[in-house]
Amino acid sequence: MLLHVVNPNTTASMTEKIASAARAIAGSETEIFATQPMSGPASIEGYFDEAFAVPGMLQRVSEAEARGASGHIIACFDDTGLDAARCVARAPVVGIGEAAFHIASLIAGRFSVVTTLGRSIPIIEHNLVRYGLASRCAGVRAAEVPVLDLEKPGSNARERISQEIERAKSSDACEAIVLGCAGMADLAAELAKLHGLPVIDGVSAAVALLQSVARLGLTTSKIGGYAQPRPKAFTGMFAHLSG
Amino acid sequence: MLLHVVNPNTTASMTEKIASAARAIAGSETEIFATQPMSGPASIEGYFDEAFAVPGMLQRVSEAEARGASGHIIACFDDTGLDAARCVARAPVVGIGEAAFHIASLIAGRFSVVTTLGRSIPIIEHNLVRYGLASRCAGVRAAEVPVLDLEKPGSNARERISQEIERAKSSDACEAIVLGCAGMADLAAELAKLHGLPVIDGVSAAVALLQSVARLGLTTSKIGGYAQPRPKAFTGMFAHLSG
Amino acid sequence: MLLHVVNPNTTASMTEKIASAARAIAGSETEIFATQPMSGPASIEGYFDEAFAVPGMLQRVSEAEARGASGHIIACFDDTGLDAARCVARAPVVGIGEAAFHIASLIAGRFSVVTTLGRSIPIIEHNLVRYGLASRCAGVRAAEVPVLDLEKPGSNARERISQEIERAKSSDACEAIVLGCAGMADLAAELAKLHGLPVIDGVSAAVALLQSVARLGLTTSKIGGYAQPRPKAFTGMFAHLSG
Amino acid sequence: MLLHVVNPNTTASMTEKIASAARAIAGSETEIFATQPMSGPASIEGYFDEAFAVPGMLQRVSEAEARGASGHIIACFDDTGLDAARCVARAPVVGIGEAAFHIASLIAGRFSVVTTLGRSIPIIEHNLVRYGLASRCAGVRAAEVPVLDLEKPGSNARERISQEIERAKSSDACEAIVLGCAGMADLAAELAKLHGLPVIDGVSAAVALLQSVARLGLTTSKIGGYAQPRPKAFTGMFAHLSG
Amino acid sequence: MLLHVVNPNTTASMTEKIASAARAIAGSETEIFATQPMSGPASIEGYFDEAFAVPGMLQRVSEAEARGASGHIIACFDDTGLDAARCVARAPVVGIGEAAFHIASLIAGRFSVVTTLGRSIPIIEHNLVRYGLASRCAGVRAAEVPVLDLEKPGSNARERISQEIERAKSSDACEAIVLGCAGMADLAAELAKLHGLPVIDGVSAAVALLQSVARLGLTTSKIGGYAQPRPKAFTGMFAHLSG
Amino acid sequence: MLLHVVNPNTTASMTEKIASAARAIAGSETEIFATQPMSGPASIEGYFDEAFAVPGMLQRVSEAEARGASGHIIACFDDTGLDAARCVARAPVVGIGEAAFHIASLIAGRFSVVTTLGRSIPIIEHNLVRYGLASRCAGVRAAEVPVLDLEKPGSNARERISQEIERAKSSDACEAIVLGCAGMADLAAELAKLHGLPVIDGVSAAVALLQSVARLGLTTSKIGGYAQPRPKAFTGMFAHLSG
Repeated sequence: MLLHVVNPNTTASMTEKIASAARAIAGSETEIFATQPMSGPASIEGYFDEAFAVPGMLQRVSEAEARGASGHIIACFDDTGLDAARCVARAPVVGIGEAAFHIASLIAGRFSVVTTLGRSIPIIEHNLVRYGLASRCAGVRAAEVPVLDLEKPGSNARERISQEIERAKSSDACEAIVLGCAGMADLAAELAKLHGLPVIDGVSAAVALLQSVARLGLTTSKIGGYAQPRPKAFTGMFAHLSG
Repeated sequence: MLLHVVNPNTTASMTEKIASAARAIAGSETEIFATQPMSGPASIEGYFDEAFAVPGMLQRVSEAEARGASGHIIACFDDTGLDAARCVARAPVVGIGEAAFHIASLIAGRFSVVTTLGRSIPIIEHNLVRYGLASRCAGVRAAEVPVLDLEKPGSNARERISQEIERAKSSDACEAIVLGCAGMADLAAELAKLHGLPVIDGVSAAVALLQSVARLGLTTSKIGGYAQPRPKAFTGMFAHLSG
Repeated sequence: MLLHVVNPNTTASMTEKIASAARAIAGSETEIFATQPMSGPASIEGYFDEAFAVPGMLQRVSEAEARGASGHIIACFDDTGLDAARCVARAPVVGIGEAAFHIASLIAGRFSVVTTLGRSIPIIEHNLVRYGLASRCAGVRAAEVPVLDLEKPGSNARERISQEIERAKSSDACEAIVLGCAGMADLAAELAKLHGLPVIDGVSAAVALLQSVARLGLTTSKIGGYAQPRPKAFTGMFAHLSG
Repeated sequence: MLLHVVNPNTTASMTEKIASAARAIAGSETEIFATQPMSGPASIEGYFDEAFAVPGMLQRVSEAEARGASGHIIACFDDTGLDAARCVARAPVVGIGEAAFHIASLIAGRFSVVTTLGRSIPIIEHNLVRYGLASRCAGVRAAEVPVLDLEKPGSNARERISQEIERAKSSDACEAIVLGCAGMADLAAELAKLHGLPVIDGVSAAVALLQSVARLGLTTSKIGGYAQPRPKAFTGMFAHLSG
Repeated sequence: MLLHVVNPNTTASMTEKIASAARAIAGSETEIFATQPMSGPASIEGYFDEAFAVPGMLQRVSEAEARGASGHIIACFDDTGLDAARCVARAPVVGIGEAAFHIASLIAGRFSVVTTLGRSIPIIEHNLVRYGLASRCAGVRAAEVPVLDLEKPGSNARERISQEIERAKSSDACEAIVLGCAGMADLAAELAKLHGLPVIDGVSAAVALLQSVARLGLTTSKIGGYAQPRPKAFTGMFAHLSG
Repeated sequence: MLLHVVNPNTTASMTEKIASAARAIAGSETEIFATQPMSGPASIEGYFDEAFAVPGMLQRVSEAEARGASGHIIACFDDTGLDAARCVARAPVVGIGEAAFHIASLIAGRFSVVTTLGRSIPIIEHNLVRYGLASRCAGVRAAEVPVLDLEKPGSNARERISQEIERAKSSDACEAIVLGCAGMADLAAELAKLHGLPVIDGVSAAVALLQSVARLGLTTSKIGGYAQPRPKAFTGMFAHLSG
């Protein structure tokens, strides 16, 4: 099985970390290939960054479809461009935020999310409402750690995330924690042990879920909202999409 | 990986069909063992039958835990006794209804459910509300086929289910179909081809999902609602549970 | 009028206390008879205990129907097995949790619930969502008092419940308190006086409500989810239910 | 027990019919006295009529409090002025719409409402949302019968209501019917027999419920939204309320 | 454009303050005329006061319709009698609470409300639910300032409101503040500057919104809930409404 | 007042029609300038087209901010890129879908939406849920008219839209109609007259609303989700955004 993981930002070290986390869970029969867009922001922190990450990410999804990928993972916790990617792909597409919410719902009554910056909280809350899983979420919290600090060896990112988990445990009556950034993929196991409850990383959750969907032979529905895009004229830097 | 599938009713032919559907998706590295309760109803059609299926089913979950199962599947679409099973088990537990809803949510904006009897509709609707996925469901419909008719060669069960799928497509604006009974496991592929949209069977969905959760090393949270049962006195036919 | 109160646990002292609370409110024209299951747990604390309380409780409901009861009260605040009991009975069935929520909604804009253990909170919250009354509930709180401590003369149960009511008043903006356990039936009046707001006990609320429904000549609807169970084979310890 | 039933409109024949329905259910130990406002509309059909019914109705509630009533019933299905009445009264106050919804929720999974005119549908739907019981309601339907036609011997009101019940049964998957007007109080028993499902009349439901609340010794919470009105200056025709 | 602003209470100084706030935003092409009822309470603090404010207010709306008003503003934050006013008027009617909620939703993801007294909180919360905007509201808070204290030069009203805004900012994660009383119209600009986030006053919001609706040539729908009142007999002090 | 209207697609004739509709409502004191992106699709029909419309649209918003615009209108009914635009702009930003929903909520209890293609229905439904106004919407319907057919003189677009309005009136119990595409701006008045209920066009609604917000002196909150984008590196075709 060939799975495509696209990191929607352009920071290569983060793409590598994500690919590594994906391969760690994928097993020997699944080949993972990881991409990042040619164009876009170095990190995704809020609605503005998302807007410029999506076009380049969709191109990677198209290329991966052509290459025969059995599925696509969008490795940003905001599930950036997820709906548009489902229009492009016939193979299933899973966002890491979405994946983490679904997996958490299978092992806990309710979970809290600990993400990077406060400005991402409304995005995550909107996604939860759209997915239907808002009622399973006990709280979305920010450790106020910029995304790329997660890549810096000396930062106190891990400590601040751990403190926010502690607050979630005592205030939210949550039964599990979801880590709200692809860049936190390497922290889940350690934090689970430290805090004594399940801690879910979206990257590995998405790989495992996507393997499930692919093994089931299911593909994205092409009736309704995810129907193939209608051919039409595109202008300017997107003129190549005209069809 | 050793996975336990428990059919909460006592009809052996249905347990076999379920085991067979589970093995078909599980792959060679996963061993499936299927059980059914010693005591209980021959089929589960409504709240009353559920009540008598659960004690025997929980015993099977306990035994399978002792045998080292990496996970448990409750193979009744009502997800009979799911919460209680999560209290008993440390390994993850997935119901086939729940599994189908989560998987459908990954490949379609909204799905309809086609189940056996009208009396099961409120149960399924309640589950959807509790799981949080009611907003993803475009309708729960009954083909008015008794569960055990699915086991009878000459019944028109398949035809009535297919007709109800047709109605769901035209009336519900659904993008995928979830089959609402473990006994429909063998119909999904054929109906998907016939109707031109994804058709999801809960048994295979649950196996695939549970493999994912188990591979992620995640277990049921023991904080909150699914905490280990408190030891206490039990009386009568359940006296052996005293602890 | 003959009303049946079933305590779903097997602790006789609690059955007596419940019967006594029921008789105190019922008046002279209503005869109360109280039962408890032959089999099951000594107290109901969470999903697991519920599962083993229900079969024995349903038998008591069947027997009471045969005896001509005009209605049934399920005297556990989790409303254990309420839906299944409604399938068995033609007479109306009321759970004490449900009863307390409905009564509280008639005299206050919003109420808080104070129950025994944290593990019961998700059960109560699920019930509130299903009944539709979650929006009327300002909070479900646990005093962390095991159920049977309510039966022990020297325990500090009453004090801890009172403290939790104080917290609910100051934090939840609640206008009334619902006591979340059948074993708290004797505390309501005193706590209402102490805290200066209505305090509702489910047992008496259920008796009063059930008298209302019975006097109205209304019985459980037999269309839909509460239809008479379909006759079928039962096995093992439930073989006597085959029909 | 002395119960006050106020018909918020000024049609004496309707007040009598309501009083009669109330007495039929109340039993010999409860004295019912029925009132109607000095000022206001002859029937309540929509928001405008409600506005002019409330002041006169609140005066009746005040007078009945002074007379020692143990409770008040607002006998208009829109529950006209219910919140304001709760501010005035220390005794419990129940609206007939509200009462019917609560009682229906105890004997059926979901109910449909059949009311008089389409313009009342949004009022009833708003009430259901506020009470929290919207999820229990399968549909609010209008028979398009003006309120006072229910008082006219030769009208086809009963027939049109019966037809709408038939439509509700076939389209709404409802398990019970709530009659949506005080003037329909005399039709419930007959329609229940005809259609084979519980049919709930709000007037008798409210009497029975209010007897329950009163017997429980519960009164309207005076913390929060239903606190005693603050004394202040009133002008013009309401100058007598200054305090 | 001629706009009618009705202050539903009878305090002339407040009517003047509201008129002044309305004129300040209206611009030279819009003529504002402000009224107050002949009968009713000096301030509106809770459900009871509302009930006696509405009849007099509806008369002002009728008179203003006859005078050719292009729209009506109900200048009480509870949107007292809004639905009834829409039945009376063909011109659009906007409540200041409603207006503030809609405007806040256009410039912020979520807003908190700071109102006068705690007893108004449930009214405002009910309105938010009915309008559909409850999910946009992060909290409704009371500064515990009686309405008429806002008119008293020496009161500490402004300070207490400012403190409550501070609490909302730190606890609610709100992005804007809505002032919950017509009498706070003169404080918005100053508090916005002080607290560094948008602060919305309902009076000016309603004027601006109503100008929009009127300029669009839109009038209140006369299909459904806001249809013209049916002619009928009225009695007593409302006998003049008979038609 | 200088208002910026951006048509997110690249079809010049549609930009002109939108500008013309905007100027017709704006009045003489407001200058409207209309733009369209340099790059992107000729029409927006679904999630995929949206993704490629947003970057070019955000550039127009930035340029218009620099030019001193008092507000921005996003003239696609999907409110394409609305959240990202609010991050870029200090001036208020209003989407035409959002504007139409808010205006409709002020003159009708509930409204139905008639849009172009079925694939846009889920997008519109998601927006309604996020805005909080889903409960005010009686149905989202597609006339199955491609967007650019609205620009073609000989198409039967107008007729099909009118037919769908007829269906909405008879099936949805709606009290007003919202036209679900910027390209329908010229049809509203005529359809309102034909069908006898308010018909709201988003373009004019947005202009009128934005004038309101601007006149109120309110700007987009810069606390929370709409905070100024954090400066960071951008790559490839978006490298000019690095800061």
